[in-house]
Amino acid sequence: MTDRPDWLGQAAAAARDAARSLAGSAAEARNHALHAAAASLRDRSADILAANERDLSASTATAAFRDRLTLTPDRVASMARGLDEIADLPDPLGRTLAEWTRPNGLRFRRVATPVGVIGMIYESRPNVGADAAGLCLKSGNAVLLRGGSDSLNSARAIHRSMVDGLQAAGLPDACVQMPPDADRAHVAAMLGASGRIDLLIPRGGRSLVERVQREARVPVLAHAEGLCHTYVHRSADPDMARALVANAKMRRTGICGATETLLIDAEIAPALLPLIVSDLAALGCAFRADASARAILPSLAPAGAGDFDTEWLDGVLSIAVVEDCDAALAHIARHGSAHTEAIVAEDEAAAMRFLSGTDSAVVMWNASTQFCDGGEFGFGAEIGIATGRVHARGPVGLEQLTSFRYEVIGTGQIRA
Amino acid sequence: MTDRPDWLGQAAAAARDAARSLAGSAAEARNHALHAAAASLRDRSADILAANERDLSASTATAAFRDRLTLTPDRVASMARGLDEIADLPDPLGRTLAEWTRPNGLRFRRVATPVGVIGMIYESRPNVGADAAGLCLKSGNAVLLRGGSDSLNSARAIHRSMVDGLQAAGLPDACVQMPPDADRAHVAAMLGASGRIDLLIPRGGRSLVERVQREARVPVLAHAEGLCHTYVHRSADPDMARALVANAKMRRTGICGATETLLIDAEIAPALLPLIVSDLAALGCAFRADASARAILPSLAPAGAGDFDTEWLDGVLSIAVVEDCDAALAHIARHGSAHTEAIVAEDEAAAMRFLSGTDSAVVMWNASTQFCDGGEFGFGAEIGIATGRVHARGPVGLEQLTSFRYEVIGTGQIRA
Repeated sequence: MTDRPDWLGQAAAAARDAARSLAGSAAEARNHALHAAAASLRDRSADILAANERDLSASTATAAFRDRLTLTPDRVASMARGLDEIADLPDPLGRTLAEWTRPNGLRFRRVATPVGVIGMIYESRPNVGADAAGLCLKSGNAVLLRGGSDSLNSARAIHRSMVDGLQAAGLPDACVQMPPDADRAHVAAMLGASGRIDLLIPRGGRSLVERVQREARVPVLAHAEGLCHTYVHRSADPDMARALVANAKMRRTGICGATETLLIDAEIAPALLPLIVSDLAALGCAFRADASARAILPSLAPAGAGDFDTEWLDGVLSIAVVEDCDAALAHIARHGSAHTEAIVAEDEAAAMRFLSGTDSAVVMWNASTQFCDGGEFGFGAEIGIATGRVHARGPVGLEQLTSFRYEVIGTGQIRA
Repeated sequence: MTDRPDWLGQAAAAARDAARSLAGSAAEARNHALHAAAASLRDRSADILAANERDLSASTATAAFRDRLTLTPDRVASMARGLDEIADLPDPLGRTLAEWTRPNGLRFRRVATPVGVIGMIYESRPNVGADAAGLCLKSGNAVLLRGGSDSLNSARAIHRSMVDGLQAAGLPDACVQMPPDADRAHVAAMLGASGRIDLLIPRGGRSLVERVQREARVPVLAHAEGLCHTYVHRSADPDMARALVANAKMRRTGICGATETLLIDAEIAPALLPLIVSDLAALGCAFRADASARAILPSLAPAGAGDFDTEWLDGVLSIAVVEDCDAALAHIARHGSAHTEAIVAEDEAAAMRFLSGTDSAVVMWNASTQFCDGGEFGFGAEIGIATGRVHARGPVGLEQLTSFRYEVIGTGQIRA
């Protein structure tokens, strides 16, 4: 027990050194490590599946949990493909983000750099470890991976392939590290590692993320929930509104960008709401409606206390009828989670008012909230979605895993 | 005592509402509030000085502390002028930071927004409250100001002028708030206000900043120390090196961008170090030198354990002789604070190696480290310097007090 806190101390120090090597590494070396790690995942597929089988045998968890924990040959192949794809993305480091010259001749450049040491805390989906390691490595960050305790054998087997990749490229093993055991004390140590871990990224259920946000003394990139709204303005094209709401709610109900609440203007609700509800009901959706919506469709189940604050992540839609755009914005300010909101409208002034009227990370006009995704944004890959207000917000891809430095180039200027 | 925690709860909720108003306000309204607050500071100058006199009478602190606490007619005028200057800077909000279109026709815009609610924790320099309130207001952020307990009367008098400005512009009073008393429990409440305060900015001595960094459960922008290095490469122009080191160390010794350690290549040290030391000695500087430097100049005081880890903030310079650029970078990695480092060199390859070889927020080539300052960067004003690795680094001006949102504009796209 006594050397538990030491894991973090030693690992973080080694990660800091490794991060310095990575920051100075050529993009080719990082890409080579990613391709080699992908090859190793393929080569070691049988070992990885056997390790995963040991985790599954030991686990007494629910079926849904076991499904997330389960690896198959396809899932291993998909992890490997993910690393290859990350390798093929443009290098996020060294980009000139801004450049200017001052009257005294000093030239300033803001240049993209790695963040440094990233701590990834995730639950029992083993592929998250490979994805996160790949994104961190590509962006020049060392990473400490702490996966769920039920997935320790799987995580170790995957980690071995990441180390194979690093070694093939001549990069330090310590670029990607994991704890030696499943002790929960490692999580607490990571949360308190101010100055040693530069950024924590929790990924998993809401209770995990909320714990990290509450207890961490290190900056956190995360979203605890995605309580997304689609607002149908009175000027909406009715057919577009029907198609967007159906997609935003029902394309996939379990992702954080799924719409959880429909807001609709009172003026158009009597004609349009029944059509929207009928579309969704045909797709298997259930409803929780406020009094005004039930005045139009009395068969809808009434929304209870807290329903408008609930991220359903399921085939359930909360419905509120609002007077206008300001009322919709007030509803979102009260109940939203600053993730993604959409307005359906033909009236540009209303759309502009909506776009600038929330403090959400992503706001959409005439598009499905399900587009809140790094791939759909064109980021190539994402490590998660952030709803905080500093550093990265929305999908977190490679560029969002970078920091920057200012380079100041003079000819001997001294300050007066 | 029981309603102490309530101050933060109520203030933060009111600040959140005020921040929403500010985010939607016109630049003209924010600028009007700043000019009106400046006018109020001038009008109420006598009241402010009387309040400050009450603080000074009650204080039993040291002379240096009393000097920081003391307001004079000039200092009040300077605060007012600072607000007028902030008003005249460009609006940092609404800037389009990036823009692209995806193959499916979705248009993406990244737009600058306020961060939200900022918590400012500072010591007993009352003008910091006015500066911080001005920068936050201009950048659309609500701010909770918690100044040192010895400055409560001064802070209240200044706060009244800020509220005068807000009222003149029709903005909510709650944009700028302060606690009702000097209870230290308010600081603890601010440090724990995850989700209610979006960003904490501590400003003051190292112990204050380190406490905030250690205990806060809210993102922090700060620097705990500025242990800046100037490295003289063997290719340096000797006259430039002498002028830069003298300025970097002695122009002002108490600022965080002052050089604390000189690193000099062994090849040139015998000829150049005596000249640099002689220049500095003439300006009143003392020295702490390693064995190699003392082999050249035996009269220099030897560097003790910890001297290379000491931010002198005074007329003292640590000196180490290094073999080459890599040795200089290794010294900085071991002893530096990731603030500002400079190389003096004519050799471009060495300079490029140095610029990309630290993880400091600011790296300079042939310029004085004393240029690490928001004004010198062209930011117009700064609320402080950050050495963290996420969000803002280096001087924190108006742009660094902003966040962003993604606006996604479609024509009815649904996700496949």
